[in-house]
Amino acid sequence: MNEQLRVLQEKLSAYDHAIGILTYDGETTAPKRTSDNRSHSIGILSEELYKLSVGEETVKLLEGLEREKESLSLEEQRMIEMMLKEIRDMQKIPMEEYVAFQELSIQATKAWKDAKDADDFEIFRPYLEKMVDYGKRFAAYCAPEKHPYDYMLNQFEEGLTQEKCDAFFGNLRERLVPLLRKIKESPQVDDSFLNGFASEANQEIFSNYLMDLMELDRNHVGLSTTEHPFTTSLGSHHDVRITTHYFEDNFASSMFSVIHEGGHALYDRGPKDEYAYTVLDGGVSMGIHESQSRFYENLIGRSRGFIELIFPKLKELFPDVIQDHSPEDIYRAINKVEPSLIRIEADEVTYSLHVMVRYELEKRLFSGELEVKDLPTEWNRLYKEYLGVDVPSDQQGVLQDSHWAGGLMGYFPSYALGSAYGAHFLKKMRETVDVDGAIKAGNLGSINKWNKENIWQYGCLYKPDQLIEKALGEPFSSDAYIDYLEKKYSEIYGF
Amino acid sequence: MNEQLRVLQEKLSAYDHAIGILTYDGETTAPKRTSDNRSHSIGILSEELYKLSVGEETVKLLEGLEREKESLSLEEQRMIEMMLKEIRDMQKIPMEEYVAFQELSIQATKAWKDAKDADDFEIFRPYLEKMVDYGKRFAAYCAPEKHPYDYMLNQFEEGLTQEKCDAFFGNLRERLVPLLRKIKESPQVDDSFLNGFASEANQEIFSNYLMDLMELDRNHVGLSTTEHPFTTSLGSHHDVRITTHYFEDNFASSMFSVIHEGGHALYDRGPKDEYAYTVLDGGVSMGIHESQSRFYENLIGRSRGFIELIFPKLKELFPDVIQDHSPEDIYRAINKVEPSLIRIEADEVTYSLHVMVRYELEKRLFSGELEVKDLPTEWNRLYKEYLGVDVPSDQQGVLQDSHWAGGLMGYFPSYALGSAYGAHFLKKMRETVDVDGAIKAGNLGSINKWNKENIWQYGCLYKPDQLIEKALGEPFSSDAYIDYLEKKYSEIYGF
Repeated sequence: MNEQLRVLQEKLSAYDHAIGILTYDGETTAPKRTSDNRSHSIGILSEELYKLSVGEETVKLLEGLEREKESLSLEEQRMIEMMLKEIRDMQKIPMEEYVAFQELSIQATKAWKDAKDADDFEIFRPYLEKMVDYGKRFAAYCAPEKHPYDYMLNQFEEGLTQEKCDAFFGNLRERLVPLLRKIKESPQVDDSFLNGFASEANQEIFSNYLMDLMELDRNHVGLSTTEHPFTTSLGSHHDVRITTHYFEDNFASSMFSVIHEGGHALYDRGPKDEYAYTVLDGGVSMGIHESQSRFYENLIGRSRGFIELIFPKLKELFPDVIQDHSPEDIYRAINKVEPSLIRIEADEVTYSLHVMVRYELEKRLFSGELEVKDLPTEWNRLYKEYLGVDVPSDQQGVLQDSHWAGGLMGYFPSYALGSAYGAHFLKKMRETVDVDGAIKAGNLGSINKWNKENIWQYGCLYKPDQLIEKALGEPFSSDAYIDYLEKKYSEIYGF
Repeated sequence: MNEQLRVLQEKLSAYDHAIGILTYDGETTAPKRTSDNRSHSIGILSEELYKLSVGEETVKLLEGLEREKESLSLEEQRMIEMMLKEIRDMQKIPMEEYVAFQELSIQATKAWKDAKDADDFEIFRPYLEKMVDYGKRFAAYCAPEKHPYDYMLNQFEEGLTQEKCDAFFGNLRERLVPLLRKIKESPQVDDSFLNGFASEANQEIFSNYLMDLMELDRNHVGLSTTEHPFTTSLGSHHDVRITTHYFEDNFASSMFSVIHEGGHALYDRGPKDEYAYTVLDGGVSMGIHESQSRFYENLIGRSRGFIELIFPKLKELFPDVIQDHSPEDIYRAINKVEPSLIRIEADEVTYSLHVMVRYELEKRLFSGELEVKDLPTEWNRLYKEYLGVDVPSDQQGVLQDSHWAGGLMGYFPSYALGSAYGAHFLKKMRETVDVDGAIKAGNLGSINKWNKENIWQYGCLYKPDQLIEKALGEPFSSDAYIDYLEKKYSEIYGF
């Protein structure tokens, strides 16, 4: 690799590492009233990172290399493309605003936590208003020709637009609404026993068991607890952290968080070693990232075979939950379809509706049709309309997710999109891999190998569309996803 | 404050924060095989910090301000003095060597841990050799006129020399050796019951109780566990972390670690608010730092009044230890004098002998009389000679402390010196504060207030000598310390 290009990316990765670990510490370990102190340092380091990323020397280097790109490797070309794209965006955002936004997002996350604790949206409101304003302002700076929400969507999934989202969600709605109706008309599943007592200590043992089963290398992947689970990679794919949250009356919550975040971690760990400390190291988009996390969470973790595999461990660690229930009881219980309040605990069928609420609200916040102060009311109204549930408190409503506090607006649609990518990947994988046999044997090696070869190893080398077509040999379609849901749930609900 | 001076120091503090949190994460939370990844980023950030600290612009700014120092505040003058002193040292060290040393210290700490786990000094030896070489080389660059070990001592305690240390330790030896002899000839204390079972969970509750008692503000002071306890402040005095290590058959080990590190944390938390993000924020020297940590650990924590105060909590949390023992039994047991292997668990009387072993060895390593490969043999020989104990393994011998791995060579003498400062401070404090009454009432506020007013609030404003004389109103002498030891231990041992 070009030496200056290497040195530049190593420096960028060191600043990312510093900001990443400061943020991670804030979420996991730091004393409660230290966030101002952390914001102070993150603000300064972000400013240095900004200068390094869009500084004169960097631009000169990258534009020089861009001019002679025929002589460069595919990897170098992609690095330059990615960095110049960011530069051309960042050049449009005034540095003070970029820095202030970074600092604000730390404070907003703290305010969100306090608001959630106190079940008081008003604590969070002024911060969220500012975050939305920053989003709009950045959109206006960077892509004045676009609808600001199209700019936001494109940040997390290159090429995604409201038009595509409207079509995608429309398609899901068309086939999932009848499915959901049939499910509601069928005899219901009993999952009440899942709320039996599961000690935090045993859940921690279980988390470690699951991570081993997923073949996450514990020498390079850490586990902590936080309010809201997440995955972060620090410095390079050599150090990845996942987090979970234990509820002693709901072992399944942490179980699926660990598998979900574990899927992110596998992807984060997967790029070729030589991509470490370059911009190619890491997942290419949020949609592809979610395709991996939700692949493991749902397509593997909520399969009958997987539940049969882990049944002895469940019986050993959570006897009060399992009692005399069979693997089939558990399989049906963890797949119970029921409109509910919390997205991360939603079943596969209603999950997209949770995402659709957020999509609708974000779209309207960014078009100016909706104000932040009206968000709780609208949230509750849409939950009633789409899911048929009454939201009893903002804690279980609009304050449930950390995303907006951290500036992740336009991110949610990628959850639904990722689920659909994952199902299409699985269909393709089944052509060459005995997926059910691998799960039955408790050896996910062949499944991980397919994902590593087709997805993880490339890091950011290919754009999402290219990567998907390369892996599938055909364009993506949401049919595989909906076919999968129809087959699975008609079998569970017996129609 | 001069605006450029403020901005410069804020940047320096942000880099310190980043490097500090990366290091802290490595010690507390990070997955095992991620240290190379961390070293990579710390190396790059250290290089940036180095450039910022000694760069042309910085030197120009500071030297410009130095020329007009009559117009500056006392604080600004001291900031400039401190930074220029460091610059004038750093200018003499080639940047590549400074960066390589920082990276090495991370790797050496990892190797030390592995060596200690495996009880194999050979794993650590090559790293320690390099660390000593760096020390010598840096000494030769910065103070070629000095003995290299005098340079090392001066790093941690401005003005300290081998000559002063020889005199100081000589004085202690002269009065402590007869004291120790008398103790040995007296009826011995029974402390075997201290090894009763104390669960880790209850020790954690106890740590929190002790921290509350010390009035450590938990909104700004965190607690974690590590192999070797330490204190670090991150970014500013607004975020301080202490660590401890629990042994279920020795609750006193963590108890005194928490009080010791808590003392450091009180000092770190104490500077005036306006010193945050400046070089004045933090302790002025290792000796003064140890004067505070050992003040709380020994002068308070090992006092009869303190044991009486915490007795009900001990009985509640550690019933298997306490059984039917009285506060007096515990007071005598935790003050039992017995030559032993591990410094951090040593009694007050033999403590200085542990320090003297390290002092002797460091002195000889730096003069070239001793090679690293012979360190374990010499360690064991001196422990036999000074303390009369046989060292059964390097794990309990030369590998017990993390200091050398982190480059802290010349640091140990400050532990003994700090103990002596602390005793002199206590003597002075007693003139205006009812120390025993405060302990009895379980309200250390008046004690903390004296320390805050006389020591903590000044941060690095005064040099150690100035600070001590200002607080004491007379020059420091080791007599208060030895008087205290003689009085306390003749009473316990009844002579």
